[in-house]
Amino acid sequence: MTTRIPPRSGVAFTLDTDQELVVIDPEGGQVSDLLAYGREDPREVISNGRTFDYEETTRLTSGNALWSNRSERLLEIVEDTVGEHDFLLTPCSTDTFRHFYPDKPVHPGCFGNLARALGPFGIEEHTIPTAFNVFMNVPVDQETGRLSVQPPQTTPGDFIRFRACKPLIVGLTACSAYASNGGSFKPIDYRIE
Amino acid sequence: MTTRIPPRSGVAFTLDTDQELVVIDPEGGQVSDLLAYGREDPREVISNGRTFDYEETTRLTSGNALWSNRSERLLEIVEDTVGEHDFLLTPCSTDTFRHFYPDKPVHPGCFGNLARALGPFGIEEHTIPTAFNVFMNVPVDQETGRLSVQPPQTTPGDFIRFRACKPLIVGLTACSAYASNGGSFKPIDYRIE
Repeated sequence: MTTRIPPRSGVAFTLDTDQELVVIDPEGGQVSDLLAYGREDPREVISNGRTFDYEETTRLTSGNALWSNRSERLLEIVEDTVGEHDFLLTPCSTDTFRHFYPDKPVHPGCFGNLARALGPFGIEEHTIPTAFNVFMNVPVDQETGRLSVQPPQTTPGDFIRFRACKPLIVGLTACSAYASNGGSFKPIDYRIE
Repeated sequence: MTTRIPPRSGVAFTLDTDQELVVIDPEGGQVSDLLAYGREDPREVISNGRTFDYEETTRLTSGNALWSNRSERLLEIVEDTVGEHDFLLTPCSTDTFRHFYPDKPVHPGCFGNLARALGPFGIEEHTIPTAFNVFMNVPVDQETGRLSVQPPQTTPGDFIRFRACKPLIVGLTACSAYASNGGSFKPIDYRIE
């Protein structure tokens, strides 16, 4: 069964070990921020730094894992039709809306949507780290370090499939920011198998 | 007054607003992991993702700030004789020693040293994020995303100077890992002005 995350919103759910999560871009051109916490102890949380340590790359795709702050694998990427995701930037928030879009209405953003969805699982917002931003296209200039947010390179139906390495609480959004989805706000679909 | 951090150890101390912290590589070729927490509420902590969001670069030097998970500036870089630091990788730890140096003795690493030094300030180890790794040289291949840890490009006396933007608790190490300092273990000096 496929569930739709409406534009500019977010959900949270649990995964058991070996369950697979498929995140789908149904229309193309959308980003989905993903967070994962250990269900047995939610002080264990996804970590971009530990992932870069152990995977030795910033370009994560099939065969790579997402690691926790406790040096354990949380999710393995088992299939990926895109190969372009971001693990440098944090979820958009009221603060980033004020900073980057001063002439636009302020929105809770992926940060607010994740905080609200994860709250009932006992996750507090100050523990929200850098998310794994599925389908997000953030080229970094090697010479200058300059980074920019570009529209996703996805086409309708593109997907990424993760396997849970342990029991998890997962937060997932359909992104709310203008830059990350090229100014369009679209849904995200997901399926647990 | 300059204080010396002995090889493979770490310290923690407080900074008041506008105090300056100078981190010095006295012999050249050494790395220092830096963490910063809000003193009024240590749930506020340095964030590589928020820093990349607002500074729009991964190459941080004079004129850039290090931001918190609450979208506030914690430290500004006001002087920097090196211009090469890392904000991608996490502090070395017993886990990273087992992973990367299976034939070498396990060491608490910068992670263990930071946890021990910050403990008396009420900081728990699960809240230790990706550190700002002063002088650490981690080139990233733009095409493949592949990253590697190379010896620092510092010469004796090189330094970086930060200004505290608010009252902070700071953790600082002389790095313990083989790769980050080219296999040499050297001290780090610091001065608060």
